[in-house]
Amino acid sequence: MEYNKLTYILRQLSKTNKKNYENYVVTRMYNRLDDLEIKFITQQYVSRGNGQYALTDMYFPQLNLHIEVDEPHHERNVEADKIREEDIINITNHKIMRINIYNSIEIEEVNLQIESVIEYIKAKKVELGEEFIGWDTKKEYSTEAYINKGYIDTKDNVAFFKIVDACNCFGLNYVGYQRGGAKHPIEKGTLLWFPKLYANDKYTNRLSDDGNLIFESNNNKESTKEQILEQSNSKVFLSRRIVFARVIGPLGDIMYRFKGEFILDTEESINNKCFVWRKISERVKTYKNIRE
Amino acid sequence: MEYNKLTYILRQLSKTNKKNYENYVVTRMYNRLDDLEIKFITQQYVSRGNGQYALTDMYFPQLNLHIEVDEPHHERNVEADKIREEDIINITNHKIMRINIYNSIEIEEVNLQIESVIEYIKAKKVELGEEFIGWDTKKEYSTEAYINKGYIDTKDNVAFFKIVDACNCFGLNYVGYQRGGAKHPIEKGTLLWFPKLYANDKYTNRLSDDGNLIFESNNNKESTKEQILEQSNSKVFLSRRIVFARVIGPLGDIMYRFKGEFILDTEESINNKCFVWRKISERVKTYKNIRE
Repeated sequence: MEYNKLTYILRQLSKTNKKNYENYVVTRMYNRLDDLEIKFITQQYVSRGNGQYALTDMYFPQLNLHIEVDEPHHERNVEADKIREEDIINITNHKIMRINIYNSIEIEEVNLQIESVIEYIKAKKVELGEEFIGWDTKKEYSTEAYINKGYIDTKDNVAFFKIVDACNCFGLNYVGYQRGGAKHPIEKGTLLWFPKLYANDKYTNRLSDDGNLIFESNNNKESTKEQILEQSNSKVFLSRRIVFARVIGPLGDIMYRFKGEFILDTEESINNKCFVWRKISERVKTYKNIRE
Repeated sequence: MEYNKLTYILRQLSKTNKKNYENYVVTRMYNRLDDLEIKFITQQYVSRGNGQYALTDMYFPQLNLHIEVDEPHHERNVEADKIREEDIINITNHKIMRINIYNSIEIEEVNLQIESVIEYIKAKKVELGEEFIGWDTKKEYSTEAYINKGYIDTKDNVAFFKIVDACNCFGLNYVGYQRGGAKHPIEKGTLLWFPKLYANDKYTNRLSDDGNLIFESNNNKESTKEQILEQSNSKVFLSRRIVFARVIGPLGDIMYRFKGEFILDTEESINNKCFVWRKISERVKTYKNIRE
């Protein structure tokens, strides 16, 4: 699925509707930065740990940078905000920068704060050098771009609109595919897995706060040690998983975001009475269509 | 009354809430122009003649320039828009520039259009030279600034928050004043007049579309030729008026906007069966407090 940047940006900006301070900061940040290679997301969900989530006002995924607009009512919550900020930073290793804005502040002072964040962003982009991958709506969700690259890395914030697009990065040539998993056609013993990592009617899957463990549980039913060992030792069991989690993307659509390569951790599984998958790599190899 | 630019700008931008295309164009125009000497008003009322009014999306009063955001639904109204535009131009002598924006347009193309308007604005400011009066919230509504200048001109878009501020530009030294008119203390036969130029419970005053005539009517009662002549020839009649019309200002407050110097047009008054005032000057002299 291709989309254009205007539609995307209008959607992001519309989330600041009726929030005058946020709208001012976000639109000024975007227009003064004026770099269509840099993508942003407004009201980005960030894990705070303990299963709690926070929203940050503006997020630059290529730079791991969040902007928080400190509006007047925030003044009373400075302490709570600081704790929240530490939560976010500890868990995601992202940076947070704050803009202070309130009725009686001079506009020049607000603009200077924004300008200094923009200086930081520009410097960061230069610093990243070739590691910085420009926002390209044509390549962003294209199987071909990742096949040509030879790998998919969590650092690149890879997400696809369709399960089939993820499948086709690994040598498959599907036209449509809807199931929650597909066998990797080249790397044996590996499942391409598309789980909902939140409670739903069938599974109670959960991603650990640090993103390193996935707890897979069938409707909260506990599994005994014997059941776990029996299943995991079966010949048809695939003990390695390439994970694309089902998420709500920045356009509001369902998307499948790459979370890394995981293997079954038998000991943790037995301890937790459910399958526990442990991340072993942030990067996986991609393959051309095997039938070509 | 003093106000700060941040509050003012937030108020203007908030009028584009939920209008994503307008919000995009107006915020980009403001942030790319990035000149706090240039004031703007969103959703400015403009006379279209025949007592009809139009709203333009963004108005730069110092430059007599209006920006219209042509959104998708406008495509069907191109003809109507053209007529409207001609109306506005004919009556106000203002310029209108248009930005085309719709879902499938490339963002770069929208941004180029905005950039070209910004080029025009910057060139216009340079062209105006000393005639360009920078936006200064401290001087804008200050009696003192206009007294020091020596005159008030309609070109400068002069408006006061209080009747008393207008009075004190002409040698008076009031602390408060609420009536609809005050005798000019220096120029004899002249009234400082603060009419509502729209129908209200007591008067049915009306400004002609070109702003050159004011029709003053007491509750729509018609006056005979004899009544008009008798009143206008009376010794206490003031046949010259300096007019500040009561309007809703850009901050939503009631303001008194300078409309020019008018004299009674007896012939037109008799024809229209009400007092008719004709503009004779766009500029009037200001005076220091006469008791100083």
